[in-house]
Amino acid sequence: MTGAETLVRTLLACGVDTCFTNPGTSEMHLVAALDRSPEMRCVLTLFEGVATGAADGYARMTGKPACTLLHLGPGFANGMANLHNASKARVPMVNLIGQHPAYHLQYDAPLHSDIAAIAKPYSKWLHTSQRVAEVGSDAAEAIAQASASAGQIATLIVPADVAWSESGHIGEISPPQAAPLPPVNKIRRAAEMLRSGVRTAILVGGNALFGRGLEVAGNISAATNAKLYMPYPFTRLRHGAGTPVIERVAYVLEQATEQFKEFRQLILVSATGPVSYFAYQDKRSQPTPPGCEIFTLAEPGEDVNGALNLVAEAVGAKNSRSALAKSERPRVPSGEITASGLALAIAATLPEEAIVADESMTSGRGILAATRGCAPHDWLACTGGSIGIAMPLAVGGAVACQDRPVLCLTADGSGMYTLQALWTMAREGLHVVTVVFANRAYAVLKREFGNLGIGEPGSRAKALLDIGRPDLDWVSLAHGMGVPGVRVSSLEEFAAALKRGYEGDGPSLIEVPL
Amino acid sequence: MTGAETLVRTLLACGVDTCFTNPGTSEMHLVAALDRSPEMRCVLTLFEGVATGAADGYARMTGKPACTLLHLGPGFANGMANLHNASKARVPMVNLIGQHPAYHLQYDAPLHSDIAAIAKPYSKWLHTSQRVAEVGSDAAEAIAQASASAGQIATLIVPADVAWSESGHIGEISPPQAAPLPPVNKIRRAAEMLRSGVRTAILVGGNALFGRGLEVAGNISAATNAKLYMPYPFTRLRHGAGTPVIERVAYVLEQATEQFKEFRQLILVSATGPVSYFAYQDKRSQPTPPGCEIFTLAEPGEDVNGALNLVAEAVGAKNSRSALAKSERPRVPSGEITASGLALAIAATLPEEAIVADESMTSGRGILAATRGCAPHDWLACTGGSIGIAMPLAVGGAVACQDRPVLCLTADGSGMYTLQALWTMAREGLHVVTVVFANRAYAVLKREFGNLGIGEPGSRAKALLDIGRPDLDWVSLAHGMGVPGVRVSSLEEFAAALKRGYEGDGPSLIEVPL
Repeated sequence: MTGAETLVRTLLACGVDTCFTNPGTSEMHLVAALDRSPEMRCVLTLFEGVATGAADGYARMTGKPACTLLHLGPGFANGMANLHNASKARVPMVNLIGQHPAYHLQYDAPLHSDIAAIAKPYSKWLHTSQRVAEVGSDAAEAIAQASASAGQIATLIVPADVAWSESGHIGEISPPQAAPLPPVNKIRRAAEMLRSGVRTAILVGGNALFGRGLEVAGNISAATNAKLYMPYPFTRLRHGAGTPVIERVAYVLEQATEQFKEFRQLILVSATGPVSYFAYQDKRSQPTPPGCEIFTLAEPGEDVNGALNLVAEAVGAKNSRSALAKSERPRVPSGEITASGLALAIAATLPEEAIVADESMTSGRGILAATRGCAPHDWLACTGGSIGIAMPLAVGGAVACQDRPVLCLTADGSGMYTLQALWTMAREGLHVVTVVFANRAYAVLKREFGNLGIGEPGSRAKALLDIGRPDLDWVSLAHGMGVPGVRVSSLEEFAAALKRGYEGDGPSLIEVPL
Repeated sequence: MTGAETLVRTLLACGVDTCFTNPGTSEMHLVAALDRSPEMRCVLTLFEGVATGAADGYARMTGKPACTLLHLGPGFANGMANLHNASKARVPMVNLIGQHPAYHLQYDAPLHSDIAAIAKPYSKWLHTSQRVAEVGSDAAEAIAQASASAGQIATLIVPADVAWSESGHIGEISPPQAAPLPPVNKIRRAAEMLRSGVRTAILVGGNALFGRGLEVAGNISAATNAKLYMPYPFTRLRHGAGTPVIERVAYVLEQATEQFKEFRQLILVSATGPVSYFAYQDKRSQPTPPGCEIFTLAEPGEDVNGALNLVAEAVGAKNSRSALAKSERPRVPSGEITASGLALAIAATLPEEAIVADESMTSGRGILAATRGCAPHDWLACTGGSIGIAMPLAVGGAVACQDRPVLCLTADGSGMYTLQALWTMAREGLHVVTVVFANRAYAVLKREFGNLGIGEPGSRAKALLDIGRPDLDWVSLAHGMGVPGVRVSSLEEFAAALKRGYEGDGPSLIEVPL
């Protein structure tokens, strides 16, 4: 058994059965091993940022790692921006990178680079397999590391001679250890804070936002009058009718500051303290008021749901019931396209158990609120602020959950970063309805320029913030990659296009000019 | 004067007047400073790999650095694959990256990352401006470093508070020091080798491939019977009628081994020793025969042309004349599309002083040879083997040389990596004729799989090497980004489309299905 076969069989034995890839010559023995392993689903992408973003989406929906197979240092580098997002999402992921054999490195071949240095910043665990006898256990360790601490990025570099040599041994992983509870004094302190009568907020993130955790947090909120928030950037939210009501921290610093102004205590549950995306001259970084005590109840790697249960018990929330979103659905709107109308159209049509991959930064701010009463669904957000995540996330979500429709919300600026994802949607026949809000601008940046306090942008600055001249024609772009697309000019056309997309079984794209 | 203004004015004072960018909020003060600096040409790209590849192309054609302005760690990461190519091309380049102020870093904002760690592998010089008083001198140092040692990548990280603070001082650079000659014993040794009667090859790279160096190398070759080679990956070649005849080392290891088999001595001139792109089981890494002496006459940072002149003198090549390519041009071919016919069509139509950005790995192998007799022109190749360079290089070449037509040769696989470049071509009205050889496959990889000695790829491997299903429609993709495109089905159609492209003054695209 070659090292490459050992690696693939170890992955499969440990439950990693999906590979997002764009391989090269240095990975060709791994491709040959994959060729003989029909249990592994291989998904080809035309750019590595699609592969890493898809692995993120896959992990968010399954809770387990996919692997990526990337070509040397530049291949990993192409995937890095979405690895940034994945690292902030705290998802499990295993990256495999080919490398030249050690004896070849001295010649500085054109594709030679310091792969370990390139991979280090976004690999919580990083290792190079030194010999074929170890590649199986190395792969098992990568999977174990990926699954540790709520989920993290593990990267294994595989030299070509390790891949082609014979006599590998399949690696094994021990069953994962249960996440530890936070220390008992933390539970006690949180309960004290909640019973103190001081105005308190709870910021819930990570995997507490889907499954049982959010409900318990809601019960605590109901019992103690603490206000429930979730971060603006979140990994996955169970959303819709019957799910606990929770407010999202605003993206805009001034709005977030307004949200937190009455609170003197903030309890963090699998979340970091709220912070402005960017720093501004003469403004504070944090939206919480000065003097607000920020207390971490549970870190992401801890037993977050267990901690919430203990706190609920301590504050006597056993019989309290979280406020739950009521089932309600707006009628299909009509007329001119407006931001609120778009949100209503999405709410009016969203299917039960849809997965929403959302990167509609400026155009889509009202959509999450509008869909609160829809049938239950899952929502995936951009966790790291690096644009170009929505379409790759949608690919990963659709591969993970083949029986669930995916709604992908993106914009023209962010969409152009990883538009190659559309081709993978077409090839794999993924049921993704991609909506491109085409505002012909980096709208976030236009607003930010206004915040500088130096007046309106001049023509040269505008040229760097507008992406019109020429306008991107997303229907043509989608057609070029095998995805049928349509441009809509009214809300009823938009809603009809959404419905057609959900009723179909392959990908489609809707361009919404704004 | 703010730090941002200081930075921009320092760049301009030091001759850096072109900026390829995709900025974000942390760079907004720099955008505001650019807004007030009409002397700086700002070129917006929709993906940072286009910006860095364009800066590479610009530097190859002007010999001086452009700057890039990139958004935090992920923005730099998106540009890294083409920085890999640029680092192998040894071109000067200055990257500017925004960063949060130091006081903001502690909160781990979503876009926070270890920018220095991310930038390090591809930055020969890397520095973070600590205060506004130093940003001018930091920028000047970045430019000086970029121009050192033939050309290298310098990266300056600019925290937002340094950019927005007042009281910067414009930096200055000293005139660059002349490149040093190699030690005299190297000149002597090279001359001895050339006069020894032992069969000798000279491998010429770097800036010796355009301008006077290649001619002198040709004269040495004529006087000593040494054979002249250039590396397969080269930065820039002056090519066409009247230029010295030089043979390119083959991409395929077996072919390169055949080229070198008779040589017992190899003299390197601004080039590294020839090496296979990849390692193969049971094959040597180097194409030169065992025992072949490999001697470096001059490193890229040295006075390569001066060294060649001294060697020419020492071997008595003063009155020898290099073999020069004869002026000849094939007739426009007709009929079915074949690899050799495509090369003839390009040779039959290539305008004088064209710039060719070439990444036609498998489909275009015959084109360089076919254009040897065309009117003089410049040829830019992929230096680092990371795909997705041709269209960005073409953008940079066209921005650098606005009166010269650019022919961009790419393929469907490589083109998809940075197709966003088409939009920048349209916006800037760049005179680039892009040819996409659409073979619906990663053809290089199919051949490499065959080399494994394990037979033909099975259906699952084929699925990772083919990029059909669906076929990419490049005419639609180009249309979507504002570039007129055409698909051709015969050689006469191809030649006619090329001619129309050259006669126009904006971008165009030709898809050639293979």
